[in-house]
Amino acid sequence: MAKPNSIGVDIGGTNLRVALVSPEGRILGKTQQSSSVSLIDTLYGAIDRFAERNVSSIGIASAGLIDRERCVVNVSPNIPSVEGLDFMNLLGKYNLPIFLENDANLAAFGELRAGSGRNYSSFVLLTLGTGVGGGIVYDGKLMNIPAELGHVVVEPDGAQCSCGNHGCLEEYAAAKAMINMATSALEKGEQSSLRECCEGNIYRITPQKIYETAMEGDGLARDILRKAGKYLGIALSDFANIFNPEAFILTGGLTNAWDIYVEEAVKEAEKRAMRGLFKKDSVIRSTIKEDAGLIGAALYAQESSS
Amino acid sequence: MAKPNSIGVDIGGTNLRVALVSPEGRILGKTQQSSSVSLIDTLYGAIDRFAERNVSSIGIASAGLIDRERCVVNVSPNIPSVEGLDFMNLLGKYNLPIFLENDANLAAFGELRAGSGRNYSSFVLLTLGTGVGGGIVYDGKLMNIPAELGHVVVEPDGAQCSCGNHGCLEEYAAAKAMINMATSALEKGEQSSLRECCEGNIYRITPQKIYETAMEGDGLARDILRKAGKYLGIALSDFANIFNPEAFILTGGLTNAWDIYVEEAVKEAEKRAMRGLFKKDSVIRSTIKEDAGLIGAALYAQESSS
Repeated sequence: MAKPNSIGVDIGGTNLRVALVSPEGRILGKTQQSSSVSLIDTLYGAIDRFAERNVSSIGIASAGLIDRERCVVNVSPNIPSVEGLDFMNLLGKYNLPIFLENDANLAAFGELRAGSGRNYSSFVLLTLGTGVGGGIVYDGKLMNIPAELGHVVVEPDGAQCSCGNHGCLEEYAAAKAMINMATSALEKGEQSSLRECCEGNIYRITPQKIYETAMEGDGLARDILRKAGKYLGIALSDFANIFNPEAFILTGGLTNAWDIYVEEAVKEAEKRAMRGLFKKDSVIRSTIKEDAGLIGAALYAQESSS
Repeated sequence: MAKPNSIGVDIGGTNLRVALVSPEGRILGKTQQSSSVSLIDTLYGAIDRFAERNVSSIGIASAGLIDRERCVVNVSPNIPSVEGLDFMNLLGKYNLPIFLENDANLAAFGELRAGSGRNYSSFVLLTLGTGVGGGIVYDGKLMNIPAELGHVVVEPDGAQCSCGNHGCLEEYAAAKAMINMATSALEKGEQSSLRECCEGNIYRITPQKIYETAMEGDGLARDILRKAGKYLGIALSDFANIFNPEAFILTGGLTNAWDIYVEEAVKEAEKRAMRGLFKKDSVIRSTIKEDAGLIGAALYAQESSS
């Protein structure tokens, strides 16, 4: 019999993604559904699809702080509905070992085993989207720490974050920050072709639109991406000074704006990091992108159960 | 024959400290001398004192970024005179294995083996003095990373640090910051009994004087310690969110001001850290204090050579 597969589950914001993953980290099947009605029913439906295909374990990736022993999400500011769910119990009917880990940590694990991190023994992974997640690989292994890199402070008296802290990186360098900057500038009457995008509704602006408009030369859009990039660069410099990783692997929707946003971050980190601790070429893209968490969850479950 | 001893060297700011350390981490003899004339001659004199006493290795603790392979300090903003010294060659005449590591990393190693860290498998060590140094123990082992925790950014557009960055923790939470705050407030004419200390010379104020004056109820002195403590607390919260260590071990001269300075830091970190990631009781004092680096250097050399 072939080596068994594993199921990876990624509990994202509004979408639940489930995949059947081979022992080598290949995705053999994948579903994506809105979990807005019932997370649990959606989860059952998705797992049922794959459960008969030589599956040995289930790995679940969720945002937030995880209690690994109990398979419970303790704190999840961005997805409060998963807090306290007893996955061990809820998925008990499958009679498979269940593992729960933070989504960015599992994305780092996925990159390490089957993505851009395969050739590195140390790297810092950052997921750049609605929020900022982090995972750290050191000495060839995923570190068993929260790595809540989106919640390091970049503005001591800054805006309050959903976690309760003030001035967190994700309030200044993630999607929310970009959208807020755009909306409030336009509300103040600033000139920008962003006003014409999204059918003229400035409350529907997305980071993608900001990037497209920036690439057409719009000043406001460029400023927004540069400002967010500057804050990302401060964090990159902090992480370089702490870890001096061989690579920074960036993933998530915002990396589409690489040319301005990430480039600015790299420039800022080069200025700030201690001599020798940051190299611009160390900042790389994920090759497995949004699948990193799914693949990481499945392979993590597989390795943890064998 | 008894198990051999090791020599620990701590290259501090103006003092060079050398100790003979037993395999159990006991200090059997210690010298402390000003290294302002010649670091190397002072070093030879100190090592000569102990070299005949069953010594198997020499460990050197220095501030800055270390090239361990070559035994060279690459970058040391606070002690530029050690940059580039070839310790392997300079100490070759002793025919002993030589090891060089960052001083705060070795202080963490000393705490792990023979100090406050003995009962923890993970902790963050911070040396709080002229600058801020850091060392990280994870999974029972000293992490082999720069851990330049004094150079995380706490004020993005803040004062320039000797490392070139702006707004580093050590510019806001260490001795220099406290002294600057005192001097500039007094220059502006602010009322405070700090004006009377140090024989009326406001340019000779020390953190110790600020603490003593604060304990007598002086408003300015208390404000200075609280402000520095607040920045330290921001950093504690960052490190808690990243590492969730079992303990924070604080050492260095500034910990004398624990009651105000550290207490304020703990309060700030409690407010900021993600739920469950920071406990105030996790912040503890070093038991081996300024000897941590010496002991750590000697034991590190011993373990690395055996």
